[in-house]
Amino acid sequence: MTAIAGSTPSVGGMSELAAIALNCSLKAEGPSNTEVLLRQVLDELEGHDVTTDIVRVAARTIHPGVLSEAQGPGDAWPELREQILASDIVILGTPVWLGNPSSICRRVLERMDAFLAETDDDGRMITMDKVAGVVVTGNEDGAHNSIAQCYQGLADVGFTIPANAATYWVGEAMQPVDYGDLDETPANVASTTAMMAANLVHVARLLKEHPYPAG
Amino acid sequence: MTAIAGSTPSVGGMSELAAIALNCSLKAEGPSNTEVLLRQVLDELEGHDVTTDIVRVAARTIHPGVLSEAQGPGDAWPELREQILASDIVILGTPVWLGNPSSICRRVLERMDAFLAETDDDGRMITMDKVAGVVVTGNEDGAHNSIAQCYQGLADVGFTIPANAATYWVGEAMQPVDYGDLDETPANVASTTAMMAANLVHVARLLKEHPYPAG
Amino acid sequence: MTAIAGSTPSVGGMSELAAIALNCSLKAEGPSNTEVLLRQVLDELEGHDVTTDIVRVAARTIHPGVLSEAQGPGDAWPELREQILASDIVILGTPVWLGNPSSICRRVLERMDAFLAETDDDGRMITMDKVAGVVVTGNEDGAHNSIAQCYQGLADVGFTIPANAATYWVGEAMQPVDYGDLDETPANVASTTAMMAANLVHVARLLKEHPYPAG
Amino acid sequence: MTAIAGSTPSVGGMSELAAIALNCSLKAEGPSNTEVLLRQVLDELEGHDVTTDIVRVAARTIHPGVLSEAQGPGDAWPELREQILASDIVILGTPVWLGNPSSICRRVLERMDAFLAETDDDGRMITMDKVAGVVVTGNEDGAHNSIAQCYQGLADVGFTIPANAATYWVGEAMQPVDYGDLDETPANVASTTAMMAANLVHVARLLKEHPYPAG
Repeated sequence: MTAIAGSTPSVGGMSELAAIALNCSLKAEGPSNTEVLLRQVLDELEGHDVTTDIVRVAARTIHPGVLSEAQGPGDAWPELREQILASDIVILGTPVWLGNPSSICRRVLERMDAFLAETDDDGRMITMDKVAGVVVTGNEDGAHNSIAQCYQGLADVGFTIPANAATYWVGEAMQPVDYGDLDETPANVASTTAMMAANLVHVARLLKEHPYPAG
Repeated sequence: MTAIAGSTPSVGGMSELAAIALNCSLKAEGPSNTEVLLRQVLDELEGHDVTTDIVRVAARTIHPGVLSEAQGPGDAWPELREQILASDIVILGTPVWLGNPSSICRRVLERMDAFLAETDDDGRMITMDKVAGVVVTGNEDGAHNSIAQCYQGLADVGFTIPANAATYWVGEAMQPVDYGDLDETPANVASTTAMMAANLVHVARLLKEHPYPAG
Repeated sequence: MTAIAGSTPSVGGMSELAAIALNCSLKAEGPSNTEVLLRQVLDELEGHDVTTDIVRVAARTIHPGVLSEAQGPGDAWPELREQILASDIVILGTPVWLGNPSSICRRVLERMDAFLAETDDDGRMITMDKVAGVVVTGNEDGAHNSIAQCYQGLADVGFTIPANAATYWVGEAMQPVDYGDLDETPANVASTTAMMAANLVHVARLLKEHPYPAG
Repeated sequence: MTAIAGSTPSVGGMSELAAIALNCSLKAEGPSNTEVLLRQVLDELEGHDVTTDIVRVAARTIHPGVLSEAQGPGDAWPELREQILASDIVILGTPVWLGNPSSICRRVLERMDAFLAETDDDGRMITMDKVAGVVVTGNEDGAHNSIAQCYQGLADVGFTIPANAATYWVGEAMQPVDYGDLDETPANVASTTAMMAANLVHVARLLKEHPYPAG
């Protein structure tokens, strides 16, 4: 599954980092604009020697709820939760629907709500020292609002948000173009994606080597 | 199912109205704070001779997607959609999680997104002439943002939002009290609920008798 | 000022309506993309025999506060408030900055907050029976969130929001194009603008002839 | 004005940090609930040997605009901007009005928008390596949405958001109690405030000693 247990020595003696990208597309399979942009982020992260993994959340069955435990048979959250907790960098990727992040994205945040009450022996949330970023795509409008909602939810449950920890693409208002339709990546999107990845790595390394103090 | 086909003559010769309340609690059964407040709205509506129905959305299985058609076997959306379209007043009720409406509520709005492209012979969205209201409960903070998101989504897909078309209760920040825990309904909440119901009925009647013009 | 006291007979015996557009651009003068789109809405409204007026809010000095009375010398709110109260249709127009409506737009909403406590002899807010719409422009992303915030604030202080009571334009993400730069109005924007105007007029007429009941 | 040039040696050889709190109350003077909570954050920061300063933004005149330069005579932004840039920790404090941060808060964010285009010789925004936090008070509802908006704006213009970088208090829905009315600080608020301060200090120190890489 993830390569986080991999033994490749980290570059320059720096801590090895693992990233997980959660694609909150409404589609369980097939082309996903959000996946296209998420993969560009992961490519950048790999260039920083981060091991990466990506999950199509809709292909699993995440039950409604706000607890870490399985909410009935077939609930895939406990397994996804373990993958998240095994990662240093968590990237929430979502399409925009009616100007907001997807119901799948909101569900992931709802399940993460349980982190608020889960502390380690030092009274720190189990997510502390992890960083989070956000990726948004849509055929029009809604990226900033989606990023705002995700930043707030993620910071509330213990993640650190590096500077410029998001990249996004939405098209002109009321037009049908999707990110996957573009012939090439717009230069501004590419540079934003690169900066996002570099910043995620920088803060993830710092926090891995210098954890937050006990609560 | 709904009582909308009921034969009770309407009061004063006015059009008979049907309301449906969608409880977007994350729980499929059992106590629901949102249901408590939704029922208070429905009681008020019944006092205005509106026939009412309430649906616990989590007890059905609404698949992810943005189309009206069933998204695979077992998708309960087509049936719920018919109930919505058979109603004059639609009330979206949602709990607050991490400051936002529930994933169930976002999913309902996503499925309603299809209304944007569904027009009648006069080029009007099939939801035109229906009014919508919003009910929010939470143990703390998030009602206004939830109302804002719901109003925008509902108006985008063709519903009319009467003045003061929402009622809500959230407790003091960082405290565990729920709406269902209160010994009595706060006077301000009760008067807001009553005004919401009266306004929904007023505009629903006007639009039923004077539909929007052709698009 | 506005032509609302004009004596032109209304078409077909219907009530004459007056609309006011509040341009919440950050600029007190000069070109304004929001003004371009607002004027298109007003043109449509005039086609429905509505008398119209437009105010560049930044050219006046609206002091911070949440009361109707002047907040110190030079506060232009009381005069603007009278213009709003003399209108049947109020359109809030705002640019997008950092994904949100402008500080000028938020200030107008803050001053409108006082309407919550201002009721007529029948216990109705003095804004009841007025309808509101929203116009948003930006070089990228933020329209839906801005519309959501405005709808919620406007409905909270007593305005009714007709179906599809907003029009907007934002360009492709991270690009510098403004609405005023376009060679022609995109067809989807034009049809949205026309529908918005028709719907504002329809509900404003209904409410003028059939006011909300006493509170 | 600020104490940031103070010569107190830092504890344990760690970098000395300076924090600035921007109180975006609508009131230029007198009691401010937001100031009460902001001062509690500053007290905590001082306990971590951070030098602190607080600015009542409404007591200055910040003109509308999105540029760093003075927007006409009397614009106090350039001076406030210098204070922000001289700080390592920036705390945006805002009251809630109609469920959203104040117009003063939105104005500060709008003026910060200019940071997006202001880079140092290494292509890094001049705000990089600074951390930001958010403080919200209101008599009811709106904290999470306000935090979300501020986090997104602040991260967009280069600030890093530590884990749990916000503290807030809002009262029960539709009730008039203000933060300043409380007999004592609720325990949950106090612990959130303490954690916020500790986390701001931790990340500010890390970034001061290990700046983000060149862009």
